[in-house]
Amino acid sequence: MIYETVVTTVDREGRAHVAPFGVRYRGREVVLMPFKPSATLDNIRASGHAVLNLTTDVRVFAGAVCARWLGPREWPLVPTSAVPGMRLANALAHSELELVHDDDHAERPTLRFARVRDETHAPFAGFNRAQAAVIEGAVLVSRLHMLPREKVDGEVEYLRIAIDKTAGDAEREAWGWLMAAVRQQREAAAAKGSS
Amino acid sequence: MIYETVVTTVDREGRAHVAPFGVRYRGREVVLMPFKPSATLDNIRASGHAVLNLTTDVRVFAGAVCARWLGPREWPLVPTSAVPGMRLANALAHSELELVHDDDHAERPTLRFARVRDETHAPFAGFNRAQAAVIEGAVLVSRLHMLPREKVDGEVEYLRIAIDKTAGDAEREAWGWLMAAVRQQREAAAAKGSS
Repeated sequence: MIYETVVTTVDREGRAHVAPFGVRYRGREVVLMPFKPSATLDNIRASGHAVLNLTTDVRVFAGAVCARWLGPREWPLVPTSAVPGMRLANALAHSELELVHDDDHAERPTLRFARVRDETHAPFAGFNRAQAAVIEGAVLVSRLHMLPREKVDGEVEYLRIAIDKTAGDAEREAWGWLMAAVRQQREAAAAKGSS
Repeated sequence: MIYETVVTTVDREGRAHVAPFGVRYRGREVVLMPFKPSATLDNIRASGHAVLNLTTDVRVFAGAVCARWLGPREWPLVPTSAVPGMRLANALAHSELELVHDDDHAERPTLRFARVRDETHAPFAGFNRAQAAVIEGAVLVSRLHMLPREKVDGEVEYLRIAIDKTAGDAEREAWGWLMAAVRQQREAAAAKGSS
C-alpha cells in the first residue's frame, strides 16, 4: 500500500529540500525507495535523517511536478524537535525519522526508517475529491512526455469534474498550475517540432 | 469545498444509522444538506445530534452504495461521550455535533451544527490513490442507472490503475464490492430487458 506524502530533508549546509514521495509503512517503520539521482537520497545519506509530512495541501504535490515549467516554489517550514531537520508548517501530522537500513540499488535503493518522534497537529477533515483529482493530475503531469495528447485531454476532462464540484482555493490554485504545465509542455513540444 | 465523511446518528430507540455524507465546514460549524427522504435527517430532527466521523476506511463508503445490491453491512461502533450517539470505532477523528439551525426545504434542507466535542484518534497516513479511486467508484455506482455502459467501463478501467498500484486489503475489498454491484445492476437490467 502506497501513501502519497511529502518528505523533507536538509543538506550538509542545513538547506531544506521538500519532495513529494510515495511511501510504504512496514509495521512501525517507514520505507522510501527514491529513484536516483535524488537530492532527498543524498541528504538522507549525509544526515541519517528525514521527516515524513502528512499533508492535505495538494499545492505541494502540484508545485513539485510543475517546477520544471513554472519554477520552484517554497513552502513554510518549521524546525523539528527530536532530529535535526525541518517539517511543513501546515502538516496535519509529521514523523521525525532515523535511517536504520540502506539497501543500495543501481536505480532505486530501499531505505528503512525508525520513527523517533510522531506529532499530530490537526485532524483529517475527510476525503476531498478535488484533492484526489490534483494528486492524479500531478501523476499525469509527471508523465506528460510519455502520453498521447488525447489521453491527457481525456484524463483532464474527467478530473476537472471533481475540481469543479468540490475544490477550495488551494485545490483550484494547484489545478491551475497543472493546467499551465500542460500548456507549456505543448508549446515547448510545438516549438521543437517546428524548429 | 466538500469533504466526504461518515455521519452516524441514533433513532428514538437508540439504533445507530451509519451514512456517508459530503459535508461543508463554515468556520467552526459543520453543514449537512441531506436529500429527503433521509434516515439521518429523521434521526437528527428527533435527537438534535449527529456525529461526524473522519475515516479513511473506504469500505464504509463502498458498502453504503452497494447495499441495494449486496445487502447492508454493519461497522464497529463505540458510544460517544459528550452527546448521546455512536461513532465509528476506527475513525481517525470524530466530532460530536449539536443541531443549531434547521433550514427546511422540499428536497434538501440545510442543517448547521455546533461542535460539542472533537477527538483525534489516529494521524492521517497520507493520500492513498486507491482510496480515492474507491470514493470515485462509489460515486459511479450510485449513478449507475443514469450512465451508459461504455462510460462506466471507461471509468472503471481508469480507476483500476490506482487500485492495482496502491491498494491495501481494505481498498481491494471495497473495490470488489463496487465491481459486484456493477455486475448485479447489469444482470438486473438484462433480466428486465428480456422479460
